Amino acid sequence: MAEQQSIDFYFDFSSPYGYIASERIEALAAARGRQVHWHPLLLGVVFQTTGGAPLVNVPLKGQYHEHDFARSARLHGVAFHRPSRFPVSGVAATRLFYWVASHSPRLAVPLAQALYRAFFIYDVDIADPDQALQVLEGLRPSLPALFDQTSPAGPLSLDAARAGIGSAEIKQRARSETEAAMARGVFGSPFFLVDGEAFWGLDRLDQAARWMQQPW
Amino acid sequence: MAEQQSIDFYFDFSSPYGYIASERIEALAAARGRQVHWHPLLLGVVFQTTGGAPLVNVPLKGQYHEHDFARSARLHGVAFHRPSRFPVSGVAATRLFYWVASHSPRLAVPLAQALYRAFFIYDVDIADPDQALQVLEGLRPSLPALFDQTSPAGPLSLDAARAGIGSAEIKQRARSETEAAMARGVFGSPFFLVDGEAFWGLDRLDQAARWMQQPW
Repeated sequence: MAEQQSIDFYFDFSSPYGYIASERIEALAAARGRQVHWHPLLLGVVFQTTGGAPLVNVPLKGQYHEHDFARSARLHGVAFHRPSRFPVSGVAATRLFYWVASHSPRLAVPLAQALYRAFFIYDVDIADPDQALQVLEGLRPSLPALFDQTSPAGPLSLDAARAGIGSAEIKQRARSETEAAMARGVFGSPFFLVDGEAFWGLDRLDQAARWMQQPW
Repeated sequence: MAEQQSIDFYFDFSSPYGYIASERIEALAAARGRQVHWHPLLLGVVFQTTGGAPLVNVPLKGQYHEHDFARSARLHGVAFHRPSRFPVSGVAATRLFYWVASHSPRLAVPLAQALYRAFFIYDVDIADPDQALQVLEGLRPSLPALFDQTSPAGPLSLDAARAGIGSAEIKQRARSETEAAMARGVFGSPFFLVDGEAFWGLDRLDQAARWMQQPW
């Protein structure tokens, strides 16, 4: 079987525009016969290279974006509630994602979606490792098979996940995934790579979808 | 007669995305019964407040945008040639715009369009006051009536324009227009204000057009 064509989706867990994109990208890609590769990254690490700063901390720009988050969510038909603490660090969520990806790969995307929804709809502080772990646990009733599946490390337990995200290996993984993204030219969230073509920002999701069908 | 509804269009003369927007905005607004108010501004002055920097000078981001300028122009069906010297200061062009706007108001928009095209298609260095003045002069054969129209200051001459852009009054005007824009929340190029609603970036031109018809 030929390898399925894909789209690479980069995002930071504290990014509202990344969240909105995450709610739309699977359907957009599926409609074009593409598979989505999800890549959470640490925008704080990227900002050390680009000199960027969280949007809401920038004079004038911050006020614009605070208004635009909800407006963009309405435009895309996505539920959105501005978290009471925002922005937060995406480090705990990113580490948890990569630990789950290495332990139970098929759980990784449902986990990313659940973390985003927990933060941007239900005001769960996913920067807190315990709350992030509870989001993972919340998937168990609906996806029991993915928790019980045979893994060299055994069934997925919360204790194993907690130990995993504290491990030097996973800490390094979150950082090296971010560096790998930057090596591919990624510097924001959301960011899409389609056949080597880069698209930055939620506003470019439709352009990325168009490029999948017909580059211009 | 009721006042015609309008859209405020803010831009920097060195901004490729502002140029692309300038080629589309009149038709988009006219189709919705709106008049466009053109507001060139000095992004360099804005950056003193926002801590921003010219896109192409930012690591990673610069490379992305250098590629994206031409791609965006193709997407919008607009002619584009990357100027050999870029970015440049928009100060001379902005001062000339406001001097012409005060002397021969109906010439101001054709001048803005001609300056943008000179820079982004024909590689004319509009940061050079003499070259900017030649762009103005280039409009005379096709728009003689606008040069000859009665003005308290008499017909429009190149010498008067040269003196005008060197005057303290016009220098202050370019700066105060930028400050007035910032007071309305404007911080980038292009930037659109529709009935008090702000849209930043070429990617938002279609959203601004949608908002003119039906806010969401």
